[in-house]
Formats: sequence, C-alpha cells, structure tokens
Amino acid sequence: MEKEISAEIITIGDELLYGQVIDTNSAWMGQELGKIGIKVKQITSISDNPDAICATLTQAISRAQVILITGGLGPTKDDLTKHTLARYFNTQLQLHQPSLDDVEAIFKRYNRPMLEVNRQQAFLPASCTPIRNALGTAPGMLFKEQGALIVSMPGVPFEMKQMMTDSILPRLQQHFQLPQIIHKVVQTIGIGESFLAEAIADWEDNLPPNLKLAYLPHLAGVRLRLTGMSDGNSDLETQLQLEVDKLTHLISEHIFAYGEVTLEEAIGQLLKDRNLTISTAESCTGGLVAHKLTSVPGSSAYFMGSVVAYSNGVKQAQLGVSAQTLETHGAVSEETVRAMAQGVRQLLNTDIGIATSGIAGPDGGTPEKPVGTIWIAYADAHQTIAKKLSYNKTRLLNIEYTVLQVLNLVRQSLPKRVEE
Amino acid sequence: MEKEISAEIITIGDELLYGQVIDTNSAWMGQELGKIGIKVKQITSISDNPDAICATLTQAISRAQVILITGGLGPTKDDLTKHTLARYFNTQLQLHQPSLDDVEAIFKRYNRPMLEVNRQQAFLPASCTPIRNALGTAPGMLFKEQGALIVSMPGVPFEMKQMMTDSILPRLQQHFQLPQIIHKVVQTIGIGESFLAEAIADWEDNLPPNLKLAYLPHLAGVRLRLTGMSDGNSDLETQLQLEVDKLTHLISEHIFAYGEVTLEEAIGQLLKDRNLTISTAESCTGGLVAHKLTSVPGSSAYFMGSVVAYSNGVKQAQLGVSAQTLETHGAVSEETVRAMAQGVRQLLNTDIGIATSGIAGPDGGTPEKPVGTIWIAYADAHQTIAKKLSYNKTRLLNIEYTVLQVLNLVRQSLPKRVEE
Repeated sequence: MEKEISAEIITIGDELLYGQVIDTNSAWMGQELGKIGIKVKQITSISDNPDAICATLTQAISRAQVILITGGLGPTKDDLTKHTLARYFNTQLQLHQPSLDDVEAIFKRYNRPMLEVNRQQAFLPASCTPIRNALGTAPGMLFKEQGALIVSMPGVPFEMKQMMTDSILPRLQQHFQLPQIIHKVVQTIGIGESFLAEAIADWEDNLPPNLKLAYLPHLAGVRLRLTGMSDGNSDLETQLQLEVDKLTHLISEHIFAYGEVTLEEAIGQLLKDRNLTISTAESCTGGLVAHKLTSVPGSSAYFMGSVVAYSNGVKQAQLGVSAQTLETHGAVSEETVRAMAQGVRQLLNTDIGIATSGIAGPDGGTPEKPVGTIWIAYADAHQTIAKKLSYNKTRLLNIEYTVLQVLNLVRQSLPKRVEE
Repeated sequence: MEKEISAEIITIGDELLYGQVIDTNSAWMGQELGKIGIKVKQITSISDNPDAICATLTQAISRAQVILITGGLGPTKDDLTKHTLARYFNTQLQLHQPSLDDVEAIFKRYNRPMLEVNRQQAFLPASCTPIRNALGTAPGMLFKEQGALIVSMPGVPFEMKQMMTDSILPRLQQHFQLPQIIHKVVQTIGIGESFLAEAIADWEDNLPPNLKLAYLPHLAGVRLRLTGMSDGNSDLETQLQLEVDKLTHLISEHIFAYGEVTLEEAIGQLLKDRNLTISTAESCTGGLVAHKLTSVPGSSAYFMGSVVAYSNGVKQAQLGVSAQTLETHGAVSEETVRAMAQGVRQLLNTDIGIATSGIAGPDGGTPEKPVGTIWIAYADAHQTIAKKLSYNKTRLLNIEYTVLQVLNLVRQSLPKRVEE
C-alpha cells in the first residue's frame, strides 16, 4: 500500500487574522488535494511576519510532505513571503526572464505603465522552480526540502486556483505515489445528527476499515460523507456503492439527494421529472422560499411566481383568505395557511401551492402563539397538508428553517405522477 | 499604556481541512476581538485528533493570552475536544446540572426524547467554568492556564456567536486591561474602493496618528471603519466624531448609514420616518428583495407584500403589464419594469412600488440582451424611475447585486415627506 501523503496549508496576511477577508482558499485547496488522495492535516493563518513564516514552515515541514503557502506575494512593502523564503532556503533572488515576459504582457494588455515594483516581481529565489501565473504579476515558487515539496502562491483566489489546476496538482500526482480515494455524499434532512447517528450506528460500526464516515451538519440537514481508500483487494467504487445502498435502506425517507446537491435543486429536479409547476404564498418567510426555488438555474420551467402577503389585506385581496378565517383563527393558523396555499395555487394556476405564516420575531408573540410559532402548508389538486413548527432562534434563522421545512414538505407530499 | 493582548484561534474538524466547510467563524471572531483591542496572531485548523489538539494548544498558550477553540463538541464519536481538554488540564468530567437543564429544555421544546449521548453533553471538566449555550446542546468551557484564558465553543456559527457576545467578550474585557478603543463605521454604497480611496485621500493622509482607517469592501458597498486608540491626550469620542464629520462632507451622497446597519435596515428606517409603505414586483430577483426587506424586525409596519412574477402570465394577470408591452419590448425592458413597479404599487395599495426584471443566467441571454442585462424601477405617486444594469457574474451574484441596486434606488428616490 502507498504511504499516506499529508499536506499543510499556510495562509499569510493580516486581513485573514483581523477577519476582513474570509479564507476560502484553504477549503478549495483541501477539496482539490482530497480528490487526488492527499490529506490536509493542518491549516495555519499567520501575519506577514518573517519570524512567524519561518517558524510555521519549519514545523509544517517536520509533519507533512506537501506545504502550500498562499499570500504575501504582492508588490507592496508588507508582502514579505518571497524574501523570507529566499532567506529560509539560503538562496538569492535572480531575474527569471519568462516571468518578466508574463508581467510585461499583463501590463501591455491593460495598457498601463509598468512600475519598478512590478519588475521586481520577476526576481525569484535561484533554488526554486518558478510556477507560471497566467492571470497575475506574482509567479509561484516550488521548493524541495527534506523530501517535502513547498509551494508558494499568490492569495488572489482565481490566480491561485489556475496555478493549482494547471501546475501544482499535476506535479503532486507525478511526484508522489498516491492512493485511490473516492467520496460518496448522502444528503439528509428532517433528522438531527444524534438521531441519525443512532439510526445508523450498527451499519457504521460494521464499515470495512478502509471506509470512513463523516457527519457534516449544516442548516439544511446532515450531509453524510463516506470516504473510501483503496485497500487493493476489491473495487472501491463497488464497495462504496454497496455501503451507500445499505445506508439508504436504513434512512431512505430522510435522504433528499446523493452528491453535492442542494434541497432546492433536488425539489426542482422532482418537479421537472413530474412536469409539475409550483407557486408560493409567503407571509413570515417574506419571499425567501421563492428566492431559494429561483436560485436554481432553469427554475422558470416549474416556478411560476409568488405572492408575499405580509399584510392581512394582501392575504384577503390576493390570496382569497376570508375575513372570517383571519378574524376567527388569526393570520398564524392552520386555517389561514391552508387557504393561502390553495389560494396561490389557484391565483397563479399552478399544480402545487405552498404557504408559510408565522411569527418570526423578535416581536409579535402572544402567550398562545409565542415567537417562533409558524404554520406551513402544501396544496395540490387532491390534498392540502398543514404542519405547525416551533422555533426558538433568531428572526433570520426562524425564517431559514421554515423555508427548509416547507421545501421538505413539498418533497414528502408531491404526487409520484402528474396524473395521480 | 496597557500591555498588548494577543489571541489565537484553533478550529477543530476534518470538514475544515477537507474543505467541506469554509471557516467563517475565525473571521467573525477576529473582527469581534479586534473591536475590543485584542489582536489575533494565528489561526490554526486541525483534525479531531487528541495529539494534534494538545500540541497545538501547548504552542498557542506559549504565544498568546487568549485561545479560542471551536468545534469537536458534538454528541458523536468523532467529537473529541471535551475529553481531550479534560485530559490536557488534568481533570475529570462531572455532571453540570444547569447545562443538563438547558439540554433537557431544548429537547422538551422540540418534543423529542433525549438520548444518552445528549445527556453526556452536560458532563464537563471539573476545573472549567461552564459557558451557557442558549441555542444548542453543547455548553462552552473556560479554562485558565499560565495566565492565558482558553475557551472551547461549538463550531455551529450561531451558537458560537451568541456565546461570544453574551459571555466570552464581556469576560475578556473584565479579565484583561484592554486599551480604550472606539470604532466608527461609515457605510457607503455606489462607489468602488479605489474611487473612494481617491476621493478621501487627503483626509486619510491627515488623520491623527492614533486613528486608523480600514476599507472593508463587501457585496453591499465599502464599509469604512475608523478605529481610534486613546492617546490619553484628548477625548477619543469627540476626536473620532470630528473626523467622521469631515469624511461625511466629502462623500455624503454615498453614505447610507453610520454604524453596523444594513442597507435594508437603513431603507426601513427611512420608510418608517416618512410613514411610507412599499411593495415589490420581482422577476429575476425571485423574491430576494422582499426577503431582504422582511429580514428587518418590525418591517410589517412598511412592507405590505410582493408579487414574484416569474412567468409572463403572472406579469400580465397580477401586475397588469399589457400583452402589447411584453410582446413589443419583452419581459426584460424599461417599459415592462416600469409597468411592474406601477402595477404592484396599485395592486397592493402602497406608496412605493419597486420592480426587477432581467436575465440572471446562466442561460436565457441573446445578442441584444446578454446574460446579466437587468432592469430595475421605482414608482411612487409622482414619478417612475427605471435603470438598466449590466453584470457579468454568476446567477446568484447577478441577483444579489440587483437587490442592492434596487434598494439603493429607493434610498435615492423616495420623497422627503409623505405629503410631497
């Protein structure tokens, strides 16, 4: 079996430490390395400070075979990575003509005069292998030390990504003997992490040693990721699919998709497959159900429109909720939300209508209907289903959870065939 | 002057290393710590691995006075942080009754049976100060060691944020003698970072040495943050306000708010102040304008409702856009978007109506109207204003930028008095 190759990522820049910029580069690099079988063991974000850079690099080299460094390669005074690396690897800067040609070409393209600081960007440590930056003025650098490969790249995401894809990932695959790794993702909704863990405990305990399960909870549910590393004895794809099938058998009603699919994409696919159209009548969710549905490219095929009915006047005049229903039961009630779902379905002439009405907070609650009391409904030609939710979160989270619940209600309720 | 207090952040979880989750917690913590005068010097992301946790913690304690740890506190087997910390600090787990009460209350609220793994979450290291988690089942833990404060929190962002705001930040301020720091935030929209920098260059160059300006560009514009650290010579609040007044004089038309106010909150305040109501007619934004407006608590005072008109049928039947307008000019046109804004204003009987219609992409473009061609409109009793936008971004970004533009159009267009 191949030796496991591990990586560390070092990101350099005060803007990361002070929270002015969210480090999205590391996640992307982690994913791409994972796909070729290299595990990231640590990500370290530090200041543009030579001592911090050297100390972090020494430690990383002692633990990992691949070190990816981003940031600190700009033309300004506070960008110290290149000079620090030259000193660290005990080498001198020298002009790298192909890099200078690239920098000059970029300035020519934007029709701007090149400054001396930009010319300086083409001076690279003599002992490194320069890595071409097709999109920016700072070339990358590859060093070898104690069996480790150390790569320095710019922090600009699109420059780093092109460099990784074009140069670094292929070089890593050439340099190391990497294991075969496959990930399978199972998307669940409507079951909490601990209940899920209990429901699949026996299965998880009996997984072959080369398969590992990760629980990745997020707002829309729990993503289960099964990762397989080839043991050389069996076909990994077949082995993983067998386990995903067993898992499906245990929790089928909670699975809304396989792979990197969102709930709204899954709903969209169901509606397209069954040739159904949908509309929404939203009170407390204020348009977020419609936004989620329309965030999917091509959603105009099944999403016709929505009425956001924040006032009772709009609920009556547009959605046909009767004044009597609103008076007797209130805007946040089973009766009103059922009428809203049926009303929008008729108004916008769709197969399915869904509705939300509730008290998102922070104000507006009563003893009988506290903040977080929310009704959702689904209506089609044959049935109307309503469900009561109770949340105790912030206004925005109450809204976001309601959107997920009403989308999940669609998933659970819609007819298998349009004729049914 | 006070000794500078530095912090390190340790985030735990393979999902961060494998790139399944982007670490947004660290940036938020870095910002909040900065606001009270604590500088983050390093962020380290590691696996749920006891050896890695202990080694990283030992190093962090040797360098910083505040260590914030997130993640690895869930109820499942791969969550090892609590046990590792108990061993690290040489202490035992014991039942913490108030935490158990909280966990039980959460399960009672959701009307679900509590599992043994959840009960176990209320067992905490004897030497720690438990930190209440009002929103989840994993309490936080505060340890003291070699003059450093070490805090362990869940990785779930909203749980971590509430814990930081309610407990951790106030405790840090009590525990350390922190310098007096005041921030003033000026929110701008409609001017790019480099143009803004040019417009205020002279003012920025002449700032007193104890004041620092940061440009924080984000989707909704550029946030300018002026940070003052007391030099003991003058009243810091007065000094800062004087500079904010000078800044306002330079770029007043681009400022939509002072302080941590969103554009939709600023719009809401303007509408409330002038006693005006609003409705939206949305095509390409699919309900996101309505969602933004209703994400503000108390928005039911001025927001009446919306019609999301994705299909032309809904544009005609609900919003009264004529078939001729749609045929002659198309759904994405000045004529249609003006008719939509006027139509929704009349339909929902509001003072102001706003509308969007465009091609968000990735498909649906034509040579005359490429993807990213978007029309927005504002209508009140006296005027209708339309504006064309051109974007070249992803579907979601095209939608989000459009929402900001139409909200900014409201800010620029609405009458000063309701009677005007």
